[in-house]
Amino acid sequence: MNTARKLYDLAGANEGLRFSPYCWRIKLALAHKNLPFETVAWRFTDKDEIAFAGTGKVPVLVDGETVIHDSQEIAEYLETQYSNEPSLFGDAPQRALTRFVKEWAESTLHPAIGRLVVPDIFAALHEKDKAYFRETREKLFGMTIEELQAKRESFAPMFAAALVPLRRTLQVQAFICGAGPGYADHIVFGALQWGRKTSAVPLLEEDDVISVWMASLLESYGIV
Amino acid sequence: MNTARKLYDLAGANEGLRFSPYCWRIKLALAHKNLPFETVAWRFTDKDEIAFAGTGKVPVLVDGETVIHDSQEIAEYLETQYSNEPSLFGDAPQRALTRFVKEWAESTLHPAIGRLVVPDIFAALHEKDKAYFRETREKLFGMTIEELQAKRESFAPMFAAALVPLRRTLQVQAFICGAGPGYADHIVFGALQWGRKTSAVPLLEEDDVISVWMASLLESYGIV
Repeated sequence: MNTARKLYDLAGANEGLRFSPYCWRIKLALAHKNLPFETVAWRFTDKDEIAFAGTGKVPVLVDGETVIHDSQEIAEYLETQYSNEPSLFGDAPQRALTRFVKEWAESTLHPAIGRLVVPDIFAALHEKDKAYFRETREKLFGMTIEELQAKRESFAPMFAAALVPLRRTLQVQAFICGAGPGYADHIVFGALQWGRKTSAVPLLEEDDVISVWMASLLESYGIV
Repeated sequence: MNTARKLYDLAGANEGLRFSPYCWRIKLALAHKNLPFETVAWRFTDKDEIAFAGTGKVPVLVDGETVIHDSQEIAEYLETQYSNEPSLFGDAPQRALTRFVKEWAESTLHPAIGRLVVPDIFAALHEKDKAYFRETREKLFGMTIEELQAKRESFAPMFAAALVPLRRTLQVQAFICGAGPGYADHIVFGALQWGRKTSAVPLLEEDDVISVWMASLLESYGIV
């Protein structure tokens, strides 16, 4: 049995630039479960490299003999497979509320951040990924990367508005899940880390409670 | 000891029109805790009637000898005082996630609904409340009630966008808190019930999962 645990993780031209919000969720979830892992740098167009997983997108987790793709599937697998480790989802109501946070992050936070950073991501991609990224993202946002860049300032209020419930929550508690982090924290962190890793200009002040929470999360998992 | 349980509940000119989102939270919370109560119809300018509670706003709960105001304070009181009844908040992570839902509802859903229904509420108010309501709401929204009315259609996309995470959540589970309702459900229901009770036109289709969830909530508490 092969016991290596490998996560295929989206990278830029610089292999050290790891920016996928969905991959970040899983990196935190693996850390939460105290599971060591290696990452494999992967680019958008490396479809052949993950064809064995039956998908064309990361994250893909190889856990010994088990291969899983899709961040939600991976998180649920980890929760079941490593049930003796700290829980990602907690009890049924916590899991249900985590679903709401997921839907909020993906419908509100992701579009608000994406609009801001897609041009910066484009600039940081491996050359072989650029045509694919341009085509898919221009379709998604209904404008060219250059138009997104030109309108960047006009997107700032949408981002600011999206952060309000998160910031107000973190003004009264350390984590979205309370005294300690859970998968709801991982989901929202993933979105903001995507922005932080790619944005040409800082998206948050260092003393923003959101920045403090992001640092606490990484610190609580020993990630620096 | 006076054992009556009374909730001061915001009303329109028609005493049967009860539309405060914060009062609705508490009506559901009391039902969740299996606590019978009477409501006292109250108007915005009846400040003297609740001066004994040290506030000028409802909800105010009189529970025997205890007087409490502010919906969050009331919910926390009910949770502690009636700890043998079904929990509103669940465990610490559920309570923390409920805070996020509260902040989301108040920063995103309330403004989106308020913009749509403030003119309808104004029309439905008791005459004595109209000057107070006009002054406070025009300040809050930065435009006159007549301007809000004229721009109503332009506010529809904001409302539609605000509903997305809620609708997606309810497409996969019966309640925000999962298989059964909790205080997070009460909070979001309160906002939408405020809209439903006051809007001149329906805000949701009857077969929308959000409408179905609202009906289930009322039905689960025997409220018709």
